[in-house]
Amino acid sequence: MLHDDEATIQRVIGSIKPLDEQAMASARARQERLTKPSGSLGRLEELSIQLAAIRRQTVPDLAQKAIITMAGDHGVVAQGVSAYPQEVTAQMVQNFLLGGAAINVLARHVGARVVVVDMGIAATLDDHPALISRKVAPGTRDMTMGPAMSRREALRSIAAGIEVVEEEVDSGLDIVGTGDMGIGNTTPSSAICAVITKKPVEHVTGRGTGLDDAMLHWKVEIIEKAISVTRPDPDGPLDVLAKVGGFEIGALAGVMLGAAAHHVPVVIDGFVSGAAALVATGLCPVLKHYLIASHLSVEPGHQAMLEWIGLKPLLDLDMRLGEGTGAALGMFLAEAAAKLLVEMATFDEAHVTDRKLES
Amino acid sequence: MLHDDEATIQRVIGSIKPLDEQAMASARARQERLTKPSGSLGRLEELSIQLAAIRRQTVPDLAQKAIITMAGDHGVVAQGVSAYPQEVTAQMVQNFLLGGAAINVLARHVGARVVVVDMGIAATLDDHPALISRKVAPGTRDMTMGPAMSRREALRSIAAGIEVVEEEVDSGLDIVGTGDMGIGNTTPSSAICAVITKKPVEHVTGRGTGLDDAMLHWKVEIIEKAISVTRPDPDGPLDVLAKVGGFEIGALAGVMLGAAAHHVPVVIDGFVSGAAALVATGLCPVLKHYLIASHLSVEPGHQAMLEWIGLKPLLDLDMRLGEGTGAALGMFLAEAAAKLLVEMATFDEAHVTDRKLES
Repeated sequence: MLHDDEATIQRVIGSIKPLDEQAMASARARQERLTKPSGSLGRLEELSIQLAAIRRQTVPDLAQKAIITMAGDHGVVAQGVSAYPQEVTAQMVQNFLLGGAAINVLARHVGARVVVVDMGIAATLDDHPALISRKVAPGTRDMTMGPAMSRREALRSIAAGIEVVEEEVDSGLDIVGTGDMGIGNTTPSSAICAVITKKPVEHVTGRGTGLDDAMLHWKVEIIEKAISVTRPDPDGPLDVLAKVGGFEIGALAGVMLGAAAHHVPVVIDGFVSGAAALVATGLCPVLKHYLIASHLSVEPGHQAMLEWIGLKPLLDLDMRLGEGTGAALGMFLAEAAAKLLVEMATFDEAHVTDRKLES
Repeated sequence: MLHDDEATIQRVIGSIKPLDEQAMASARARQERLTKPSGSLGRLEELSIQLAAIRRQTVPDLAQKAIITMAGDHGVVAQGVSAYPQEVTAQMVQNFLLGGAAINVLARHVGARVVVVDMGIAATLDDHPALISRKVAPGTRDMTMGPAMSRREALRSIAAGIEVVEEEVDSGLDIVGTGDMGIGNTTPSSAICAVITKKPVEHVTGRGTGLDDAMLHWKVEIIEKAISVTRPDPDGPLDVLAKVGGFEIGALAGVMLGAAAHHVPVVIDGFVSGAAALVATGLCPVLKHYLIASHLSVEPGHQAMLEWIGLKPLLDLDMRLGEGTGAALGMFLAEAAAKLLVEMATFDEAHVTDRKLES
């Protein structure tokens, strides 16, 4: 018999369907009738068609928006891979709850709610009405000593992400953005990237919150050691997540899967969300069509992740903060694309000549 | 004695000052205290500092926003350089007034008002409370036969742009975006680009609303002919505007100058706004610091324009519609940048540790 979490994950993966061809065709036909030269809105046209196909609506309504920010700590920080101390994870989560972090500002700017989840912070946080606790453990184990988590913990983290997003779907959700907080979490993200895309660790490892050259070199060594100690199976996304991942990364993979199962488009943030997307699309390849890559992170492995999955980022603004900040900006563009499809007049409605001159 | 319009333009150019170093330094110092790793918001940090320096405020407020869309017709369309007939200029202006065009949708999405100005449409439009008429003439003359407009008309178009933006400043304006409508207006824009940046016409001429290969080839020939007939002075921006420009292009140059004189940042749209920016920064080089390049157009000359001025676009979404659509998206990013600077908590306020670990 399957473990409950495994059953949840399999149920969700089984219900993720290919995109709706009919809604896609209707949206594409409508784009051709809108008062503009065909194709002149560029990627916003493609995006609107993708959104229609995901939502199964010719004119998708994206009024209800949420950024889900998953937080967790990482045993590997004991090896000195981050420029900030571990206590900052919990402190920043408090900042999210008080509305003072970058993600709060950007989520307000785009009209999205922020959902903050403790997936495994290495501290006990006070109860707060806006904090969801799904703590798997107070931080992962140090992956240079052995797997960061057990297979069961990996399943739990994904299932928790599914549970969180399904609760949001119940309260009304048209589009979701992913975000992360976790001191040290570019280290597992680079490890996941190196294992799955089979690129050298040094090509996919960056400065995170601000490492100098010596610390960057050390971070690469630590990641190489973790991979050689735990030997994750490149073709087993769950194995990779368990051995060199993180609780917030598993939870974000769960959010992506759960959202897609409910026809909710997912705007993915930067490097850590990208690691989650590698795991999630590894578990369910068709998920890719439900994902929108918001921006290209400064982290050098991000490009490799997006290419592996087959996504093209909308923005390239040299950002590397996480939290869901890039996703919030991408969500704005998604809503812009949807509104153009919904609200623009057609040539007929506006009495504008669509006759092109003969050449 | 100076002609009135010339006096207006000189008054405005004389009042455009370098950016406020003190506001810039304060904004930069505040960015360093916000709860995020230094630099992690990438180009949004630089943008917030530029906005503070333009607005002379450490924490700039960009609540009052407008897109000014300048419309005009072009005698050169008689040569068959556009895929659409000239009547579409007036029809699209009606569409703007009814709120059904792409710029209306995006302006609503970002909370900006749309200001529509008839600078020289080749038709008589019915009065409409939202339509500003500054018609210089019902379309420019065919520039393959001689100058598109007289020097006096060129001055009038720039001064009209200044008048329009100064009226908006009087009703409250914190940031402005530029937009254009004019069938055939990528032709004068390419001509301006070729003359000022001294690039070959064929390198800076594109398909506009959708030319095929044969029409594109013809468009290049027509632009080369116009330049050889009118012989604009590459170092005389006013001469270039008069000989191969357009009324809406001159007006947009005026908007840029007038806004900068009142410390209002200008988000410039794509290719046609880029041509106006070439003229305006030619008249007043310091203006460049007040400009924000929203996006990179598909038109091949746009990159050359932005490089000439020294601007880097925020977005690259394969757009080529004009109207101010790119500017509206860029305005959203500018407001995001400003809000981050204003609303984010500092490390002290949020009790977050800013101590980086020693390497």
